[in-house]
Amino acid sequence: MHREENGVGSDGFFAADRRRLMETALGKQAPDLVVENASLFNVYTGEIRRNSSIAVSSRRIACVGGKGDFPPGPETRVVDADHQTVIPGLIDGHTHLAWLATPCEFLGYAARGGTTTIVTETMEMYPAGGLEGVIEFLAALENQPVKILATAPAMASISRNALGISDSDLQQLLAREDIIGLGEAYWQTVLQNPDIFLAAYERTAEAKKSIEGHSAGARGRKLAAYTALGISSCHEPINRDQVLERLRNGIYTMAREGGVRSDLSEIAAITEQKVDLRRLCLVSDGITPEDLVSNGYMETILQKAIDQGFDPKDAVRMVTLNVAENFGLSGHIGGIAPGRYADMVIIPDMKNIQPSLVISSGRVIAENGVLSVPPRQHRWRPQARTSVHLPARVRASDFDVLLDRDNDHPPDNGRARVNVRVLELITDLVTKERVVAMDKKGKVLSRDRENDVLKVSAVDRRLSPGSLFSGFIKGFNLKKGAFAATGAWDTSNIVVVGENDRDMAFAVNRIKDLQGGVVVCSDETILAELPLPLFGLFSEDSIEAVAEKRKKINRTVRELGAVSADPLLTLTTLTGAAIPYLRICEQGLVDVKTGGFLSFEYGRL
Amino acid sequence: MHREENGVGSDGFFAADRRRLMETALGKQAPDLVVENASLFNVYTGEIRRNSSIAVSSRRIACVGGKGDFPPGPETRVVDADHQTVIPGLIDGHTHLAWLATPCEFLGYAARGGTTTIVTETMEMYPAGGLEGVIEFLAALENQPVKILATAPAMASISRNALGISDSDLQQLLAREDIIGLGEAYWQTVLQNPDIFLAAYERTAEAKKSIEGHSAGARGRKLAAYTALGISSCHEPINRDQVLERLRNGIYTMAREGGVRSDLSEIAAITEQKVDLRRLCLVSDGITPEDLVSNGYMETILQKAIDQGFDPKDAVRMVTLNVAENFGLSGHIGGIAPGRYADMVIIPDMKNIQPSLVISSGRVIAENGVLSVPPRQHRWRPQARTSVHLPARVRASDFDVLLDRDNDHPPDNGRARVNVRVLELITDLVTKERVVAMDKKGKVLSRDRENDVLKVSAVDRRLSPGSLFSGFIKGFNLKKGAFAATGAWDTSNIVVVGENDRDMAFAVNRIKDLQGGVVVCSDETILAELPLPLFGLFSEDSIEAVAEKRKKINRTVRELGAVSADPLLTLTTLTGAAIPYLRICEQGLVDVKTGGFLSFEYGRL
Repeated sequence: MHREENGVGSDGFFAADRRRLMETALGKQAPDLVVENASLFNVYTGEIRRNSSIAVSSRRIACVGGKGDFPPGPETRVVDADHQTVIPGLIDGHTHLAWLATPCEFLGYAARGGTTTIVTETMEMYPAGGLEGVIEFLAALENQPVKILATAPAMASISRNALGISDSDLQQLLAREDIIGLGEAYWQTVLQNPDIFLAAYERTAEAKKSIEGHSAGARGRKLAAYTALGISSCHEPINRDQVLERLRNGIYTMAREGGVRSDLSEIAAITEQKVDLRRLCLVSDGITPEDLVSNGYMETILQKAIDQGFDPKDAVRMVTLNVAENFGLSGHIGGIAPGRYADMVIIPDMKNIQPSLVISSGRVIAENGVLSVPPRQHRWRPQARTSVHLPARVRASDFDVLLDRDNDHPPDNGRARVNVRVLELITDLVTKERVVAMDKKGKVLSRDRENDVLKVSAVDRRLSPGSLFSGFIKGFNLKKGAFAATGAWDTSNIVVVGENDRDMAFAVNRIKDLQGGVVVCSDETILAELPLPLFGLFSEDSIEAVAEKRKKINRTVRELGAVSADPLLTLTTLTGAAIPYLRICEQGLVDVKTGGFLSFEYGRL
Repeated sequence: MHREENGVGSDGFFAADRRRLMETALGKQAPDLVVENASLFNVYTGEIRRNSSIAVSSRRIACVGGKGDFPPGPETRVVDADHQTVIPGLIDGHTHLAWLATPCEFLGYAARGGTTTIVTETMEMYPAGGLEGVIEFLAALENQPVKILATAPAMASISRNALGISDSDLQQLLAREDIIGLGEAYWQTVLQNPDIFLAAYERTAEAKKSIEGHSAGARGRKLAAYTALGISSCHEPINRDQVLERLRNGIYTMAREGGVRSDLSEIAAITEQKVDLRRLCLVSDGITPEDLVSNGYMETILQKAIDQGFDPKDAVRMVTLNVAENFGLSGHIGGIAPGRYADMVIIPDMKNIQPSLVISSGRVIAENGVLSVPPRQHRWRPQARTSVHLPARVRASDFDVLLDRDNDHPPDNGRARVNVRVLELITDLVTKERVVAMDKKGKVLSRDRENDVLKVSAVDRRLSPGSLFSGFIKGFNLKKGAFAATGAWDTSNIVVVGENDRDMAFAVNRIKDLQGGVVVCSDETILAELPLPLFGLFSEDSIEAVAEKRKKINRTVRELGAVSADPLLTLTTLTGAAIPYLRICEQGLVDVKTGGFLSFEYGRL
């Protein structure tokens, strides 16, 4: 494997390469590639310069000049931009590649649209596969048609088993060139656990890498407290005011338009403020396979920004220079100038992001929407296929919700009832605590199906294998069967929601057999499934097949009664530390606001 | 010594400090200092926000809020900005502190005007004192009222003895937190010696520190070739077009207004171009003691930029955020936002840079032009006082200019003459080669006083002690005596110009006795001198006394006939690799364009 194919930063700074660049610029060597007749957008000055030529050698830009400045040699590839606009390769500064489709499948679609650098989280991989898993994932990202960089997992988790990254693991990762920062850690978790996160922040600052932030909903003093710890960015603002406050705090503010949320239409109002946007970026924060296959990637998001009213020059910088600057990589990516990677996209004009040709690290990788350099398929090590470490098969009775004591709750009017904290979905993602009086038999609490009070369980598959916690959920609205998945956010949990315990056990055991995946079942029959045999995170199918299976799963769960627009997203976020207010993991119910565990019996802590 | 007092970067990133910052922002601890009633200039958004308050703790900014947001505790210092404008502390992103006045003396004037961070070269110190000298210099910069950061010496030198920095010395320096980059290396020298400089550039990139540039006069392909090697900045453009070309190349472009050159009035035309100025900076590149004492420092330069037509918001960012970004330090300096050092300046309004109060790292260091925190006097180690290692006293005959052979030059019309390359000053700094027919006696060539052809010699004092080369100079116009100095640029040379050899020897020997300094003499009598006993670079006098002595030296040399406006600058630059075209060092005459040595006999190489 040639690390340098993917490298950005010091590893990509070989003296021999730089010497060739110098000699190409001086005209002593012919360029490997020349782009001619370009209307070049200069991100640094904001100018568009007609009749530009760009000389490339050794994967980087050697020189930018005028018409005819770079006579081709016999080996030089000449690209005629035909007086169309040339912009730098697009950068997705924050996404999550470790979910569903493999990087190779993802890139089959993503790379054709002009995205030449992707920065991905590794937070899904660390709980699922540990340091070795992260390293394997990074190996799958290497040597691709575009540059994929990653952040080390910060691991804000409601589970104490998954909380934080070990110092030695972090040091090993920070020493790598492809790790360019520390990933997102939710502000509330950070402020609740400053010892854990400040240690990681200090290590990251020592390594001169960026500390990515996640300040969803924070404002005023809380946002300042979090920012003061040294965080560089936030990709969570959902409207103009939140963007403005982050920009004022000196944060690289990432407007998000992707699979989890689409905030651009609200955020676009920032253009009326006439403030400097040099620290505003545009990211996907993850995109579903369906969306990618149907709609494309960063080129589509950039187009939306322009359509929503951003000045095209600002918008292009939001996915190029500004992002590069956030990561301290503007000497390498984000602009078309000497020494930068030769990442360029030809588009009709600044208002129409329809890439006709994409150059990545000096190679033409796509023309007219067709990828000419295929993504590399990674050969996963056998260990990747063993990630569900349940010690035994799960039984229906494992999902019993038991009171600590029986006699605390005397019968009332003939019914033995107890006040229970229920996790109520008030949107597809946000929950709140709801107190519900529920029937009990002895120490056992039962579902209240009539009132849509179902069971939800988190079963740990790796960090404390077999640990299991069950509680109640309202608002999911499953009328039959069970729905289970690996990839539960911020944990190594399988999360399962069920109308009955037998189906819950069936679904979890099926996931054990598959060694990861998503299962919908009823009457102990599989209705839909998506095997994720690699770390419980990746399918081995094509991205089109993954998209179809994901659609089918969501359709099936909705046919069983679920009301969420994206039930799989709703399910997997139930363990997430970032979303208010009540969450569940293998250790219990957690109040996200305080980070503290709550008993499911209301009135007890 | 408390390193943290001066530190910027990871060393200043102590978890305990950050925790206090967080708690201050959250209101759990009272701030150490609060600035109230500020019209705050936000460098990130370009807004000015009235009635702002800023809470400071642990040397950094905890939170920025509105009126009354930060109730003071019993220990809190409250600064009432009285509705004046508050801007970030100014940064000089490129200067040369290792010359004439000690850092302590320099800061006595420089710190009062609002400059809170200074980035200095160490290139003068390395040839004069080696790695130990640089380390001693860095020690003198520590723990001052303002932050002084430095670049490692890159050592573009015409002398092979002084060319380049050893890899082990560079690594030691790059490991230090106060070394934030590699200093300037002139583009011609770099392109002539790519092996030497690419190795240093690679080390610097590995350390994730900036590579400062010096592309004086370069354009087109040559500028691109140099930029492609990874350089980050250039402080050498002298007009609008040079600025524009550098900005287009993605270079942080530093407009210079200081002791060596004042380019602002030419450069200000860039404001008519309506290009983005986010990569334009404003630096001094060194300032004379006279100028500092009389006119001030960065506050004066900033005022000039505004007076020359720069939008005040752009101009302030040219000495704050833009400079911080060049060095990857914008999380620490250059803006008023949480987590940044509390460096703030109160001025009447954005058009009037008259600082009434200066806060540096959370301390009020100056009020109404009076410094309230005195700079720290460094105790120099005894070794600092031994830097002129001439093995013996110099004799007049050591300055003989000898032809290799006598018989090449038969007498012509009774006079034995030979064509000689003479270093002709065509401005106070720029020289060119001039070929002059000169008389010889045997192998000895003599001055042609009538035609102002005098002798110039470079005598090495450290790297090859006692090595000496003599040639001829025209345009200095000394009618009597000799003028000698340590601190000859880019070398460990003493440089001396003389009307006669005895005075040249006298001046050099006087410098040996002083262990460094500047001497003007005639008839073996000292007319003016400025002892520089510390490394041959620093006086122990007050900066006012240094300014007076420097003025007297220049006046005296001009009384002896010299025509330069600043003869000391003219003298010390004669060894400099950066200034065209013909230069001299202890190894011979050098053609700066090629880097090659030239015989003083024209027609020989």
